[in-house]
Amino acid sequence: MKVVNLDYISGNPVLPEVQKAMIEAIRENYGNPSSSHRLGDQATETLELARGRVAKLINCASPEEIVFTSCGTESINHAIKGVAFAKADKGKHIITSNIEHNAVLKSLRRLLKMNYRITSVSVDEYGIVNPDDVAKAITDETILVTIMHSNNEIGTIQPIEEIARITREKKIPFHCDAVASVGVVPVDVQDLGVDLLSFSANQFHGPSGVGGLYIRKGTNLSPLLDGGDQENNRRAGTENLIGIIGMGVAAEIAHREMESRIEHAKRLKERLIRGLKENIPDIIINGHPEFSLPNLVSVSVKYIEGESIVLMLDEDNIAVSTRSACASGALRASHVLLSIGREYADAQGTLVISFGRDSTEVEIDRFLEVLKKAVAFLRNMSPLYQKANK
Amino acid sequence: MKVVNLDYISGNPVLPEVQKAMIEAIRENYGNPSSSHRLGDQATETLELARGRVAKLINCASPEEIVFTSCGTESINHAIKGVAFAKADKGKHIITSNIEHNAVLKSLRRLLKMNYRITSVSVDEYGIVNPDDVAKAITDETILVTIMHSNNEIGTIQPIEEIARITREKKIPFHCDAVASVGVVPVDVQDLGVDLLSFSANQFHGPSGVGGLYIRKGTNLSPLLDGGDQENNRRAGTENLIGIIGMGVAAEIAHREMESRIEHAKRLKERLIRGLKENIPDIIINGHPEFSLPNLVSVSVKYIEGESIVLMLDEDNIAVSTRSACASGALRASHVLLSIGREYADAQGTLVISFGRDSTEVEIDRFLEVLKKAVAFLRNMSPLYQKANK
Repeated sequence: MKVVNLDYISGNPVLPEVQKAMIEAIRENYGNPSSSHRLGDQATETLELARGRVAKLINCASPEEIVFTSCGTESINHAIKGVAFAKADKGKHIITSNIEHNAVLKSLRRLLKMNYRITSVSVDEYGIVNPDDVAKAITDETILVTIMHSNNEIGTIQPIEEIARITREKKIPFHCDAVASVGVVPVDVQDLGVDLLSFSANQFHGPSGVGGLYIRKGTNLSPLLDGGDQENNRRAGTENLIGIIGMGVAAEIAHREMESRIEHAKRLKERLIRGLKENIPDIIINGHPEFSLPNLVSVSVKYIEGESIVLMLDEDNIAVSTRSACASGALRASHVLLSIGREYADAQGTLVISFGRDSTEVEIDRFLEVLKKAVAFLRNMSPLYQKANK
Repeated sequence: MKVVNLDYISGNPVLPEVQKAMIEAIRENYGNPSSSHRLGDQATETLELARGRVAKLINCASPEEIVFTSCGTESINHAIKGVAFAKADKGKHIITSNIEHNAVLKSLRRLLKMNYRITSVSVDEYGIVNPDDVAKAITDETILVTIMHSNNEIGTIQPIEEIARITREKKIPFHCDAVASVGVVPVDVQDLGVDLLSFSANQFHGPSGVGGLYIRKGTNLSPLLDGGDQENNRRAGTENLIGIIGMGVAAEIAHREMESRIEHAKRLKERLIRGLKENIPDIIINGHPEFSLPNLVSVSVKYIEGESIVLMLDEDNIAVSTRSACASGALRASHVLLSIGREYADAQGTLVISFGRDSTEVEIDRFLEVLKKAVAFLRNMSPLYQKANK
């Protein structure tokens, strides 16, 4: 039985066109782009073609502003630690928000141990950062601001342009984790005004294990991977050419299909939210009602454990997530949900339903039907529910 | 016309069996190994299968000692910076050798800027490190020794076991960059006694952009990529599953074919060295005559530029390298060749000829023939040569 995949945020299925390009690239058996002979030249050409396509997706001023990495996490580590290490002489203060992805959080935690200081601004009930809070947090020692574009658990999109106006005025580099956004909603680095922007191919139907880091010309940061001269001396290591080629094709298609994908996702999202509200009592839809990703719904189902629902849905061949896949090993409550004011128990009962280009209304309806039964079953056994409904 | 590839050290052609496995994996369209539903389970299974195969190639005590990375360079950065950051409280002194790969050199240079101290031991005329020199360099502040297994420019293999006996007695972690060795010659981490060992799939006919880091159980180091819980909390970021699957298959085949590959390479190497000596006057064969890689020959051709030979050979569809591909952008003389006592001019005139499983005697002969003409042509124009032969 085919699995109903409503866990796109953990990874998108790779598009047939992308698969085809990767398979052709494997058969082509390219050389090493760094070699000076013709085996290397062919590889360089395909590498630069992919770079151009990716640069176009986020509207870089020049393709050279793109560095290929091995994943969104590497891009984020590179941006944050790269600026922190390069600017340590100037200061050791970094500003972030309370709802960042683990890759940001843990990179910053690493820097904390190296005597950097971190200010984390809080968010409102929808998960929105107030740009004024960022402005107030800036000191003479501030060397970096890192705020995500959209949140991978609740979908909320931040006022990045406003924050960037503040950081540019103060000449502080601004890194934006846009992993959940690039290829899903329009992301234009020139409009946004950020200096660094992280993203990942698998969020727009490219292969997993390939990412990109936008580095605005003139931004000063150390490499995370030191070694050879690859990527204009910004990221050493022989490239994952097969993956990069796939990313390029996925970027081109995402750029072309952006509008229709958004429309499609919005329709599904509306249907899903309406269905949830009509079918399941005692739920909370998380995230901002307007400024949010079209392809993701976060719902807290009161009185039960999200993990139990995931397992029951899995029995019925439906894949959803409780939160970001990279954290699914950890059973603690999400810091994002606690930050927007959810109770600990409600945070534990939260599902993230994410979908995409090939998701259908039938799949949404099937999910709603199975979820309704699963929730009724689990609540029936829940002491919390019994107590609340006595 | 088919290119005669004698630049295997820049990257091996991917084996048909590996290509097949990768293509199947692309078509399979696995999920994210970190997801808790069945799409994730399938991915986890294939990931662990590959881990077992790679662990077997280097004889790990347990597959858990393998962390997958995006390349040999990442493995090296992870090992060196990971120990340096984790042990900074204990001391900031690191020991290395004069002929390490750029990934090691530049990682250490990064640490120098962070107030670490580096001692670099010299090598003899064959490029061999004297283990006594390592022992003498150890201080109470020493937190890491990093010495390569074999050199990627001259092929010399180091007495790693002897060095490891010293570091173990002193309880200092020992990292070994074995990128040029793993899959080419037997590398047994238990026999060697190292704590950390870096390697790359593309050196044994796996895809480029995938590497591995062996971490002996109990070795304390920080992740290079902070974020999610992947790889037992040692390397965050969604995995390049396609590449890892390819690496697993390549590792299994390398393990099986090790003996026959070595025999084949040795035959070609003998033929090549004999041909060089017989056909080209005024050359120096670099590296140790016995303790060296079977698949690589470094030859310094006096009075001419290596880069010019590479370009002339390329015209004739023959690919060789002047030194490691990751450094081919830089025209300075190799630090490895200078370290073993080559004159600056001779270092500039050095070729690295590397081959493998599918290389043939016909290719070696064709190379020798074209090289002979190219050298005669270039020497004819060389003022250095005219002067020496007046």
